[in-house]
Amino acid sequence: MTRSNSKTPAAGIKWAGFCRPFSSKAALNDVIGNDTDSSVAVMEPQERVDPFSLVANELSLIATRLRSMVAAEVPNLASAAEYFFKIGAEGKRFRPTVLLLMATALDVHIPELSPPGIGDTLPTDLRTRQQRIAEITEMIHVASLLHDDVLDDADTRRGVGSLNAVMGNKLAVLAGDFLLSRACLTLASLKNTEVVTLIATVVENLVTGETMQLTTASNKRFSMEYYMQKTYNKTASLMSNSCKSVALLAGHTAEIAMLAFEYGKNLGLAFQLIDDVLDFTGTSASLGKGSLSDIRHGIITAPILFAMEEYPQLRAVVDKGFDNPANFDIALEYLGKSRGIERTKELAMKHANLAAAAIDSLPQSDDEDVIKSRQALIDLTRRVITRNK
Amino acid sequence: MTRSNSKTPAAGIKWAGFCRPFSSKAALNDVIGNDTDSSVAVMEPQERVDPFSLVANELSLIATRLRSMVAAEVPNLASAAEYFFKIGAEGKRFRPTVLLLMATALDVHIPELSPPGIGDTLPTDLRTRQQRIAEITEMIHVASLLHDDVLDDADTRRGVGSLNAVMGNKLAVLAGDFLLSRACLTLASLKNTEVVTLIATVVENLVTGETMQLTTASNKRFSMEYYMQKTYNKTASLMSNSCKSVALLAGHTAEIAMLAFEYGKNLGLAFQLIDDVLDFTGTSASLGKGSLSDIRHGIITAPILFAMEEYPQLRAVVDKGFDNPANFDIALEYLGKSRGIERTKELAMKHANLAAAAIDSLPQSDDEDVIKSRQALIDLTRRVITRNK
Repeated sequence: MTRSNSKTPAAGIKWAGFCRPFSSKAALNDVIGNDTDSSVAVMEPQERVDPFSLVANELSLIATRLRSMVAAEVPNLASAAEYFFKIGAEGKRFRPTVLLLMATALDVHIPELSPPGIGDTLPTDLRTRQQRIAEITEMIHVASLLHDDVLDDADTRRGVGSLNAVMGNKLAVLAGDFLLSRACLTLASLKNTEVVTLIATVVENLVTGETMQLTTASNKRFSMEYYMQKTYNKTASLMSNSCKSVALLAGHTAEIAMLAFEYGKNLGLAFQLIDDVLDFTGTSASLGKGSLSDIRHGIITAPILFAMEEYPQLRAVVDKGFDNPANFDIALEYLGKSRGIERTKELAMKHANLAAAAIDSLPQSDDEDVIKSRQALIDLTRRVITRNK
Repeated sequence: MTRSNSKTPAAGIKWAGFCRPFSSKAALNDVIGNDTDSSVAVMEPQERVDPFSLVANELSLIATRLRSMVAAEVPNLASAAEYFFKIGAEGKRFRPTVLLLMATALDVHIPELSPPGIGDTLPTDLRTRQQRIAEITEMIHVASLLHDDVLDDADTRRGVGSLNAVMGNKLAVLAGDFLLSRACLTLASLKNTEVVTLIATVVENLVTGETMQLTTASNKRFSMEYYMQKTYNKTASLMSNSCKSVALLAGHTAEIAMLAFEYGKNLGLAFQLIDDVLDFTGTSASLGKGSLSDIRHGIITAPILFAMEEYPQLRAVVDKGFDNPANFDIALEYLGKSRGIERTKELAMKHANLAAAAIDSLPQSDDEDVIKSRQALIDLTRRVITRNK
């Protein structure tokens, strides 16, 4: 079922240097392996559904559960619940959206759930269990933001005062720990130790990624391989392992679970690569309009790493650090005349395409909801690449 | 098998205001329900074994595993591993010692392990699984110390520079998160979701306890009930739930698991009550020789709460806070003329006795190791009360 890369892209759908056909009748037929009768399965472009609206009701349910849980159980942490919902709506809904869409996209042949174990009183309904994964993922994501805020003394995150700045380190650490313990409790309620292991690995990866970022060794800071591993740990591990968890809960085969994992991994990598570009460019196309916060903190990301390949003398500049503003300008100058930004976007595109290919490789389905959700997942790979914030 | 409280204590064993007979032949017979032939089962006092040395080999194994795990996996966190082993030896071994002794103490009728599930490649040997609980408990304990250090800007903990002071908040939060994720991974490897739930509850209790301590509402700060709940959350939950986990892994009944829980809970409460006394008295018997760090931070503990019952005017003094040193002296004066310290010690003793009673209530055993371990657990209840550091 994997679409051949050599195929001519559907007319009218051109996407930067890469071609990623989607949402046209021909392309969708290709995805779903149905070239004859597509009256139900294929939506015309004007019928395309926004990925977020496709799961809006469930997203709202999950948001309410998360908010009431934090507020009700620990009144002192109510401000943490506020934080949940004040940060940019896009950011806060992205992960649950992916997971709910994945749940429907994999809803091909849902096997009977294995009989519940003794004392198993918690959610046996598959969809509810998958919603729990979305909640757990959001809890872990917010916990990592809270703890990162402590780490970095960040005053703002996405334009909103960080909980840390408003409430102090004390509450930020506690709120993060609380969310982690709630995530762990919710995980335990699913009574699937393979999923517990996957999600525990995510938390470990988040820490390892943050620790990798602290390194001062040049051979690591200036290594693209090290950067990609760090990016996987910090960003892609959560998405890949939670997607895989959604598949495993549904009782899918290891092959299907791996496709879900590959989707999440490559979407996460593409997302972060674009994030690293935006840190330089901001909403404009020009250098230096972003917050430049990474390089100011000595964090070397893909654009600089690619620029270094063209201009090895940039290494010495970066090694000196940026206490001297002149040095900072020199580094940006090298980046500007290099293909660093362009190559980073290309790499992001490659991973977005790999994510889409994973969805294309799923077994075919005639179910309209399944097809819509798969289309939405592919649509997200495009949104991640084309976003400018 | 529960010993009657009205029984005359064994001659020669008097313990403060309470009588807690132990380690005499008569008392041990009473514990093990064997009044006739005790040639093997009963140890003479001079044969009593130090609780720590009874499990020294396993403790060393666990310490090595913990140290190598942290150092090997995340070199940047190696300093956290150092921290593990630099803090007072007593403190660091207390929890694993209790759990290993409990494992042996419950080794009455170990049932066959249920057959391992699919993909279950991890420890199936019961004793190894119980050792994992000891490791998990130590990881969670150290993680909470690390995060508490961030919270309180503690410069020292037990005379050793805190990781926070030496390495900064960044590494302290990361090291704590890393230990929590490792604890979660180790938990998952045990493939027992009831145990996962118990331990996840512990982490939540630790956070809730810390949050409760932040409250500024007088009706909570000055409530003995609130204080005891906070103390359970912050100290006793970890011990009680891990003791229960050791019992559950061995396949014991709910009744036995509850006795293990009660032992851990009451030992933890007694431990913390004495800690709160020592904060005032230090190693001396007189007031004001301790670090007085609780009251300096506005944390109201049992001695002050009991003093308030005798001298209600102390409430107004405490409510003013201790920015004014004169106010501080007035509070200590009230405490000194009250029975606050004495009543706190009595309450600690009551809980120590309840812990010992839980061990006494276990089904009898003729196994020498079982008897020795039970004696050691009872011995620990005495050590917790009589310690002066």
